[in-house]
Amino acid sequence: MKRLVLLRHGESEWNQKNLFTGWTNVDLTEKGIQEAIRAGQTLKKEGFHFSRAFTSYLKRAIKTLNYALDAMDLDWIPVEKHWRLNEKHYGSLQGLNKAETAEKYGEEQVLIWRRSYDVPPAALDKDDPRSPMCDARYAAVNPDELPLTESLKETVERILPYWESDIKPALDREGEILVAAHGNSLRAIVKHLKGISEAEIVKLNLPTGIPYLFEFDDDLNLLRDEFLGDPEEIRKLQEAVANQGKKK
Amino acid sequence: MKRLVLLRHGESEWNQKNLFTGWTNVDLTEKGIQEAIRAGQTLKKEGFHFSRAFTSYLKRAIKTLNYALDAMDLDWIPVEKHWRLNEKHYGSLQGLNKAETAEKYGEEQVLIWRRSYDVPPAALDKDDPRSPMCDARYAAVNPDELPLTESLKETVERILPYWESDIKPALDREGEILVAAHGNSLRAIVKHLKGISEAEIVKLNLPTGIPYLFEFDDDLNLLRDEFLGDPEEIRKLQEAVANQGKKK
Repeated sequence: MKRLVLLRHGESEWNQKNLFTGWTNVDLTEKGIQEAIRAGQTLKKEGFHFSRAFTSYLKRAIKTLNYALDAMDLDWIPVEKHWRLNEKHYGSLQGLNKAETAEKYGEEQVLIWRRSYDVPPAALDKDDPRSPMCDARYAAVNPDELPLTESLKETVERILPYWESDIKPALDREGEILVAAHGNSLRAIVKHLKGISEAEIVKLNLPTGIPYLFEFDDDLNLLRDEFLGDPEEIRKLQEAVANQGKKK
Repeated sequence: MKRLVLLRHGESEWNQKNLFTGWTNVDLTEKGIQEAIRAGQTLKKEGFHFSRAFTSYLKRAIKTLNYALDAMDLDWIPVEKHWRLNEKHYGSLQGLNKAETAEKYGEEQVLIWRRSYDVPPAALDKDDPRSPMCDARYAAVNPDELPLTESLKETVERILPYWESDIKPALDREGEILVAAHGNSLRAIVKHLKGISEAEIVKLNLPTGIPYLFEFDDDLNLLRDEFLGDPEEIRKLQEAVANQGKKK
């Protein structure tokens, strides 16, 4: 049997402020740090021994991984970081308040931007200070591959090549892998693994800091998936994520 | 010009208790965390943009690196971890108090164990719970290569192959590299880079948390080296390290 665990980063400073974050490189809050440590403790208690971990280029996912691995006494394993695991790019919405945006444009429009499968928000300009072209960490990436906005569809399309080239082979080779990333980049992987439709995937809300286990047979056929932790708590966390785009 | 920075981990729980640590996987103290953050801030202020970092399999070095990279906003760069960068193995002294050992065996014997070039402390048994053979993180390493005790000479001999195979090529290829490791594993690298004699290297005391810069020309000939930070503070830190083996 082979096992993959997906872990959405703990609460960030902009989750807390209810701002559209996307590729903005905000830090974890103290609550977010505690979520990451608790996720690591859960995984340790459940007997996981990951041989390798993957994360994005964004601080909130990298630190979630670092805190979780430290809690598991696995901080020594190889970690591979890649920009393709970054959160969905939110274009010109990055930095705007979700509730205010809902009041201005209506809840429905915000829900389309947040949850439609193929409608991206308005793009950033290339020379906007928020653009990845202005950020040293993407200097080595082909600029044609870097987004200035994204629909979830486009997020899926840039993550799957990395899944195929790096994560899936590691899972196949080594058998137990951890991926710490973001609400939408993990949605992309879940959609692919479970064959979820475009209409259904936008309704899937991954709670922060709750390890999400996928078990496969030796040929990488999916056997089962489950969130690790207290079921009632997980249900409440999923509802909270779904309600972020509503008016206050 | 090419630049290498060596960084000895910040204060650990056993530095504070004055115990022989070696390969024991102790954590940083709060002071150690602050040292690591300050090292990162110094390196950021001095304009470093490392493309890659190296560290050991031991928590105190890995976390020093994580905190320093976070402070530099470079947490996204590739990090390579290797057991060959671990601290000198202290054999059966691991876990003993330095001052008590000095009272029992005499300061001179302790100084020989700590600072002679080629006299190792008594070895651990293979099945001692402190042995690397009993630790999951070394399960993939050829047991014949794992130490049960080490002189500094043996520490140098196990680190240099990794310097040649991985760190030096990265420095040559990329130009700016950070290595976060331990008092003796960094001594091994310094000995090699500066051609320091066996008699002199044992007297070199690297302060914790102070970045140590080596500048090279494009053919990797060493041009100069210096500690980065306040000179008076660095002198005091070096004295403190040298005094650890004396009676209380």
